[in-house]
Amino acid sequence: MRITFLGTGGSMPSKDRGASGVVIRRGRELLMFDCGEGTQRQMVKAGIGFQRPMRLFITHLHGDHVLGLPALLQSMSLLRREETLHVYGPEGLVRFVKAFSESLGGPVFPVIMYEITEPGVIHEEEGYRVEAVKAVHRTHSWSYGLLESPRPGKFNPEKAKELGLPEGPAWNRLQLGEEVEIDGVLFKPDMVCGPPRDGRKIVYSGDTSPNDALIELARGADVLIHESTFLDELSDRAEEDGHTTAAQAAEVGKKARVGRLVLTHISSRYPEPNAVLAEAKKIFENVIVAYDFMELDVPLKKAF
Amino acid sequence: MRITFLGTGGSMPSKDRGASGVVIRRGRELLMFDCGEGTQRQMVKAGIGFQRPMRLFITHLHGDHVLGLPALLQSMSLLRREETLHVYGPEGLVRFVKAFSESLGGPVFPVIMYEITEPGVIHEEEGYRVEAVKAVHRTHSWSYGLLESPRPGKFNPEKAKELGLPEGPAWNRLQLGEEVEIDGVLFKPDMVCGPPRDGRKIVYSGDTSPNDALIELARGADVLIHESTFLDELSDRAEEDGHTTAAQAAEVGKKARVGRLVLTHISSRYPEPNAVLAEAKKIFENVIVAYDFMELDVPLKKAF
Repeated sequence: MRITFLGTGGSMPSKDRGASGVVIRRGRELLMFDCGEGTQRQMVKAGIGFQRPMRLFITHLHGDHVLGLPALLQSMSLLRREETLHVYGPEGLVRFVKAFSESLGGPVFPVIMYEITEPGVIHEEEGYRVEAVKAVHRTHSWSYGLLESPRPGKFNPEKAKELGLPEGPAWNRLQLGEEVEIDGVLFKPDMVCGPPRDGRKIVYSGDTSPNDALIELARGADVLIHESTFLDELSDRAEEDGHTTAAQAAEVGKKARVGRLVLTHISSRYPEPNAVLAEAKKIFENVIVAYDFMELDVPLKKAF
Repeated sequence: MRITFLGTGGSMPSKDRGASGVVIRRGRELLMFDCGEGTQRQMVKAGIGFQRPMRLFITHLHGDHVLGLPALLQSMSLLRREETLHVYGPEGLVRFVKAFSESLGGPVFPVIMYEITEPGVIHEEEGYRVEAVKAVHRTHSWSYGLLESPRPGKFNPEKAKELGLPEGPAWNRLQLGEEVEIDGVLFKPDMVCGPPRDGRKIVYSGDTSPNDALIELARGADVLIHESTFLDELSDRAEEDGHTTAAQAAEVGKKARVGRLVLTHISSRYPEPNAVLAEAKKIFENVIVAYDFMELDVPLKKAF
């Protein structure tokens, strides 16, 4: 999977940072988290097409997280998209989309919207699921986790040959977790495969104060993308506004033992991200500050 | 006056061209024409502040001309703007602003909206007026002209001294067009000033097919900013969609005898604007193709 940061600014876009938007390419599918103003243009600049299967997860209905949706739908219509777009978000999402569609004309391709009312699994298909937990912000907000299913353990061809299993379709089926019977002998996957390997996990905080539900969701994540609107000197302001400081985000990453913490939603008052990074690094070493168009590959987990 | 082109792309933004937006700085005031998605960020990049007196003229309610308004209002609110913002546009403007305000929260400073139903003068104050004429597009659309009032003729200090007029407040008053009586002698402005000088005129087409009302409005304009969505090879498509080709825009500039023609709303199918420029130049010499962040000074007219 490859993560592309389309917009990494907080509240107001700056010269260098656009409004919130992160997209994960998983095979052909795009899984996008938030869609602030200008996201479609960032997609064009990043070379991400508008015709792909796509699911969009909006954390909350603040302008800098959702105001790119109208123009994205319009451009997808102009380009004659036919594929269904799935959009998830808090209560009010449908009303928002209807409101501007009535004024400007709605999309001419299928858009299915889901308003989330309860934390839990909001989408599941072969290979992965997406979970939502309540964020702590000034309005109904969600944090999201993309959790891949465990992958079958690594196939051991030497072992298979030892057992007299002929190379061919049987190998594939065992590798996919199926049992195979050959000449009355039953072969089970664990006879020729290592233990199942964990799927990857990527968690996106959206705007939120630090909270336990998010730490729980992020536990052991390969990548936690966490907002970091303020430095700790403005922790009162952060609490008041439902935001997180760099130090607090690092604490979350540390408690959740994530593989890598990526800070985003950087306020335009910090044009130089070094101070943000330094504050977080004191608490959690494996942290970076995102920038617009940053790409991050999340490799498959190795077998034990 | 200084014109800044914030977005010069057509329909869909490209890597190099944002959605439509042009701003004219006239003294402290901003006169903005259209506000496509991303306009606020282009303003930040161009160093144009959000606190200035401002009038915004929307040509029509298509996304690439109006979808920057919600985020602009939100950012102005975040920055605690207090100054009134005046927004002019076609019928449906109020409904559009209300629709997203109800979903996302409306502006916290005064916004006065004007829906234009008849061509004519839509705003007038000391020094200039703005006129609207009907554009020919797929939806209710307006073209706008900014017309400065004639300025008093050039004051001639030698002439004033010859007439025995003492240097001082009387000079200023005469220069401003007032009569002055000194010791029973009446002095009229034309005794010491040259003939009134024309004010400047800038015309903005918005999206439109070529039409006579626009030529009339643009007659003698210092600058005509005209859409040029297609090349002439796509003139059928241009007519169908209510757009103009580069050659047609040049014809408009030629017929209206404008000082300078600036082509904008360039389709992303023409990443290289040379062909656009070449097509127009065959018909009208004084033409340029706008690019994002291009600035154009419109100097005061010289006295005769």
